Amino acid sequence: MSLRFGVVGTGAIGREHIDRITNKLSGGKVVAVTDVNQDSALQTVEQYNLDAVIYPDDVALIADNNVDVVVVTSWGPAHEATVLAAVEAGKYVFCEKPLATTADGCMRIVEAEMKQGKKLVQVGFMRRYDSGYVQLKEAIDQGEIGQPLMVRAVHRNPEVGENYVTEMAVVDTLIHEIDALHWLVNDDYKSVQVVFPRKTKYAHDKVQDPQLFMIETNSGIVMNVEVFVNCKYGYDIQCEVIGEDGVAYLPEFPSVVTRKNGKLSSGILQDWKYRFMDAYDVEIQDFIDSIGKKGEPQGPTSWDGYIAAVTADACVKAQKTGEKEAIRLQEKPVFYSKDTVCETV
Amino acid sequence: MSLRFGVVGTGAIGREHIDRITNKLSGGKVVAVTDVNQDSALQTVEQYNLDAVIYPDDVALIADNNVDVVVVTSWGPAHEATVLAAVEAGKYVFCEKPLATTADGCMRIVEAEMKQGKKLVQVGFMRRYDSGYVQLKEAIDQGEIGQPLMVRAVHRNPEVGENYVTEMAVVDTLIHEIDALHWLVNDDYKSVQVVFPRKTKYAHDKVQDPQLFMIETNSGIVMNVEVFVNCKYGYDIQCEVIGEDGVAYLPEFPSVVTRKNGKLSSGILQDWKYRFMDAYDVEIQDFIDSIGKKGEPQGPTSWDGYIAAVTADACVKAQKTGEKEAIRLQEKPVFYSKDTVCETV
Amino acid sequence: MSLRFGVVGTGAIGREHIDRITNKLSGGKVVAVTDVNQDSALQTVEQYNLDAVIYPDDVALIADNNVDVVVVTSWGPAHEATVLAAVEAGKYVFCEKPLATTADGCMRIVEAEMKQGKKLVQVGFMRRYDSGYVQLKEAIDQGEIGQPLMVRAVHRNPEVGENYVTEMAVVDTLIHEIDALHWLVNDDYKSVQVVFPRKTKYAHDKVQDPQLFMIETNSGIVMNVEVFVNCKYGYDIQCEVIGEDGVAYLPEFPSVVTRKNGKLSSGILQDWKYRFMDAYDVEIQDFIDSIGKKGEPQGPTSWDGYIAAVTADACVKAQKTGEKEAIRLQEKPVFYSKDTVCETV
Amino acid sequence: MSLRFGVVGTGAIGREHIDRITNKLSGGKVVAVTDVNQDSALQTVEQYNLDAVIYPDDVALIADNNVDVVVVTSWGPAHEATVLAAVEAGKYVFCEKPLATTADGCMRIVEAEMKQGKKLVQVGFMRRYDSGYVQLKEAIDQGEIGQPLMVRAVHRNPEVGENYVTEMAVVDTLIHEIDALHWLVNDDYKSVQVVFPRKTKYAHDKVQDPQLFMIETNSGIVMNVEVFVNCKYGYDIQCEVIGEDGVAYLPEFPSVVTRKNGKLSSGILQDWKYRFMDAYDVEIQDFIDSIGKKGEPQGPTSWDGYIAAVTADACVKAQKTGEKEAIRLQEKPVFYSKDTVCETV
Ligand SMILES: [Mg+2]
Ligand SMILES: [Mg+2]
Ligand SMILES: [Mg+2]
Ligand SMILES: [Mg+2]
Repeated sequence: MSLRFGVVGTGAIGREHIDRITNKLSGGKVVAVTDVNQDSALQTVEQYNLDAVIYPDDVALIADNNVDVVVVTSWGPAHEATVLAAVEAGKYVFCEKPLATTADGCMRIVEAEMKQGKKLVQVGFMRRYDSGYVQLKEAIDQGEIGQPLMVRAVHRNPEVGENYVTEMAVVDTLIHEIDALHWLVNDDYKSVQVVFPRKTKYAHDKVQDPQLFMIETNSGIVMNVEVFVNCKYGYDIQCEVIGEDGVAYLPEFPSVVTRKNGKLSSGILQDWKYRFMDAYDVEIQDFIDSIGKKGEPQGPTSWDGYIAAVTADACVKAQKTGEKEAIRLQEKPVFYSKDTVCETV
Repeated sequence: MSLRFGVVGTGAIGREHIDRITNKLSGGKVVAVTDVNQDSALQTVEQYNLDAVIYPDDVALIADNNVDVVVVTSWGPAHEATVLAAVEAGKYVFCEKPLATTADGCMRIVEAEMKQGKKLVQVGFMRRYDSGYVQLKEAIDQGEIGQPLMVRAVHRNPEVGENYVTEMAVVDTLIHEIDALHWLVNDDYKSVQVVFPRKTKYAHDKVQDPQLFMIETNSGIVMNVEVFVNCKYGYDIQCEVIGEDGVAYLPEFPSVVTRKNGKLSSGILQDWKYRFMDAYDVEIQDFIDSIGKKGEPQGPTSWDGYIAAVTADACVKAQKTGEKEAIRLQEKPVFYSKDTVCETV
Repeated sequence: MSLRFGVVGTGAIGREHIDRITNKLSGGKVVAVTDVNQDSALQTVEQYNLDAVIYPDDVALIADNNVDVVVVTSWGPAHEATVLAAVEAGKYVFCEKPLATTADGCMRIVEAEMKQGKKLVQVGFMRRYDSGYVQLKEAIDQGEIGQPLMVRAVHRNPEVGENYVTEMAVVDTLIHEIDALHWLVNDDYKSVQVVFPRKTKYAHDKVQDPQLFMIETNSGIVMNVEVFVNCKYGYDIQCEVIGEDGVAYLPEFPSVVTRKNGKLSSGILQDWKYRFMDAYDVEIQDFIDSIGKKGEPQGPTSWDGYIAAVTADACVKAQKTGEKEAIRLQEKPVFYSKDTVCETV
Repeated sequence: MSLRFGVVGTGAIGREHIDRITNKLSGGKVVAVTDVNQDSALQTVEQYNLDAVIYPDDVALIADNNVDVVVVTSWGPAHEATVLAAVEAGKYVFCEKPLATTADGCMRIVEAEMKQGKKLVQVGFMRRYDSGYVQLKEAIDQGEIGQPLMVRAVHRNPEVGENYVTEMAVVDTLIHEIDALHWLVNDDYKSVQVVFPRKTKYAHDKVQDPQLFMIETNSGIVMNVEVFVNCKYGYDIQCEVIGEDGVAYLPEFPSVVTRKNGKLSSGILQDWKYRFMDAYDVEIQDFIDSIGKKGEPQGPTSWDGYIAAVTADACVKAQKTGEKEAIRLQEKPVFYSKDTVCETV
């Protein structure tokens, strides 16, 4: 009765998903694992005391009839091939971002999935499962602030390592806003322009930091999104939607408030891991429950993975040109037309 | 490998626990149920599609060798007998409040448990598992505000029914603060005085509302606790600890903030069910995990149940006399001396 | 056309009033000063470059036909005699607290004033002119929260000197709440009880700190007022009124908000002088304008001074007895029956 | 000893300044007035019971030897001529915005003032005297948030009339941010780009609303300023400065907080008049005091008026072209090089 998971990629995020499926959530179990590093796969099975087969590669794992769902947590460039193979085998897929490293790769998955006649794939954009975002979307969808006109979003990290270069502000950081914001306002992106403000002295040589992305949607909503990955003070995700009748804000992450040393303060997270901890749990539980109850996942689709890829490409181009760059999506297939709604509260 | 639960009492709270054990949490399953209303037990098994035996009564359920844990969610006056029987059978017990309706009853359970030589019982005081309370306790325990001197707590409901009488302010409402506050400041209660402010016009004839409880601890901390169950505006739990070096507050329940119609606002819950929803999940998962990993539950003990009963008795007496009433606890057995700590964040 | 002030007492507060009358406000000028320390009087005239006569004592100053208003900023025990003399001479009086050091003394002033047939005296309770209190009173008076049932007030100082003893928590500190709270809810006090929580380690030997005052009004409103004068973290005045339909709070003193070093913070004042700076200005300007436009001051009256004295006496007694002490006011003369309303916004 | 004011223009803002000089502040008096509508001038003298000469025009008023200061509160197109005449006569000038309607006009005033050898003119940009802005600037100048990198500002009105057209978003609304923001970060503007988001349904045909201005400074600070004049919900001024070490926010306008009807709320002003009421008072008092103590005003200079004019021109051009437009200021004369600092707290 439990959904049987095969996990491709037993690095940090892979192990976290294994842990939550095994020890925190209901209705799933891990029955197979693989990793390009077989030692890692072996250690993982031992660490979580799994009753799971260790496969030499994704192809073998996918071929296991006991595997209902393939979790793709390998490194990004490997995603496309694994997802395609799993979809072609008719298996459900939970794929961490990116769905594929290119828009064309995403489109190949979209087409493979449509060929199977039902939704099989969910992409790991967990923000849609964060209780704050869910509340914010609800407020918008219920007309609390009227038609959205502008969005302001902020994605700040205290600092990043030497290997974090300018493009990663899009591919690793902004990518979460890219998925969340079009979902939030039920619209599609049209163009993006990037501006580089004065660079913080805390940024390494190879990264422009902060960066400002101005994204326009088809209906004319203007989104100003700040990425600032050496902001020093904490991990801070903000989102504010300005509508015709009012403004709605993503709640601050809850924290004890103190009066101390001349300050009335609440804490700001330092470590991004805590910010969406609950969202990850809700995300995977919803994935399990939706397959169980409706036969298909209800979360971010392959099409959402495609949107993210096309948009990210335009954002990277805009980083380079300094010009307003078009975001050109193919027409949305009817197959994906029913917006998947996260009903979780 | 799963912990096998037998549930005594399939009313609302019993079914909720069954639902979370079955569909939301990991490591437990419901294998037996009973209820004085056998139809209710039967319906529950069907509703949740349980593979569970329906027993005619608690004695039969406890006798089932497949039952590892007895969940006591029957009506209050029945708790003591069921808990005692389960403890004497060496079974784990998760008992919703009250542990017993009298202090003597609680003491009988305490003694029975000590005779078994290990902690078997956890009382369902879920606030200790609320992330806000956990953060607040952490701040206090880490010395953020120095030695606590005063506490101010507020327990407000929008309204209550005709059957809610003055005593219930203690037994049904304040009881949660009674458990949470001594845990929060690591102290024991010494006395209580009750004051009735001007009564709200929204209260029924038979209930004094609001009520103010002034509770003193052994070390001299003074706690002012307001119970106001017809406050109209929402369900609102506040807690503030004033220490030698600062003040710490329980976080507000997170909510979207809006600017609209001349107001900068966040929402206040109307329904108490949402306030501690997550805490219930964490509570039961911790109960399962603690038994699995440490062989005994780590949450509120029988002794905490006894403290609650003695304190509630004094509060009810103080409602009647208007005087300062002593809260006289027996000496704490060494058996319970290691404070159980909720390590969950 | 300017109101001509004679100032009795040229200490710190006296000089501040001279400064604001001379350099900040409109419609008044200082024409006479006196002080038991004549050097101080002389220095003051020089410091503010006043065109003012220096008198040997209050009697001589009051006798000056050029003096319209006597400002009483001498030390407390001297207030009564100066105020009485000024009132008997038909002069307006602005008297810093206390109006007199005894309730009987206040009553003598009340009677002298009534004999003059019009209000001459205003007592320096400046909180009624603080924009936050004014807003709070407006909200209450307009029925925003319905009938008040409870009040919670907090008066915290970072620290006090060795000379601050237990009684001063009433006479110097609580006295401001005593005036403000009955005005806020339009009610009279009935009784008071004092509780001493665990004492902070930061308090000197001779002072009990913190202290909790529980004051009841005639209509049954219960006010919990905390005085905590070694709270370390700042100067903090809080006031919260709980009504039948909602709760209203005194606004926090406005401050820049920052996100920095893992904290979202706003500042708390360290120095009480800044908290009511504007209120002092508004207070004296209103005093000048009211005399100009209506022929009598509109602020706190001699009767309010009497209420403060009687209430403070009961609070000091309650500090000593630990019992609930009655607050027994004489019947309010019709002369004072029209509540003076601060219309300033 | 009082500074003697002659007021040119007795409309609403002129009368307000007359009222504050006469009835609220210290050290000034109105001795002369004029208006193109002589009835208005006459009514004003009567309304405020002024002992003032009514002149037929500004030239005659300026010629009066009793006039020390000329207040220019006529309509905008008349400002330049009056200011020039007053400066050439060696009189102090307090001129409401705009200093002149063209950059060239402002430059003529700058040159005339330099010829007089001392600062005579202050422009009525009152935000620099708002306690919130003063606190914010202090935090920045003291290095609280390190070097500023980005600014986000919001200027929202509930609604505007039919006569409010697109350009007025710059000339009447943004103009206050134009002055305040360069002062706040001690920098000069370099370019501006304007984006029009989806238009609110509440805006009239002739106005684009909202508008987003992206302004860059010489040092690379990027300022995103939103003007939204039909936001419906209130009058709302926000300003947030993002620096290398943290973020600082302009305080919200203080308001009573309530818990009521399921909302925790504070009020947002509806009427802009209340937002900077105190700032106007502080502004004029500082103008009077600075002339008295230092012989010249300390507030916004003619050069600030010139900066505002040049920047506004570029913003209006950018509204039309949709392109990034340069903001080209002449080199700052040494005469204005000492930044005037508002020391008022
Ligand atoms: Mg993810
Ligand atoms: Mg419970
Ligand atoms: Mg005073
Ligand atoms: Mg102005």
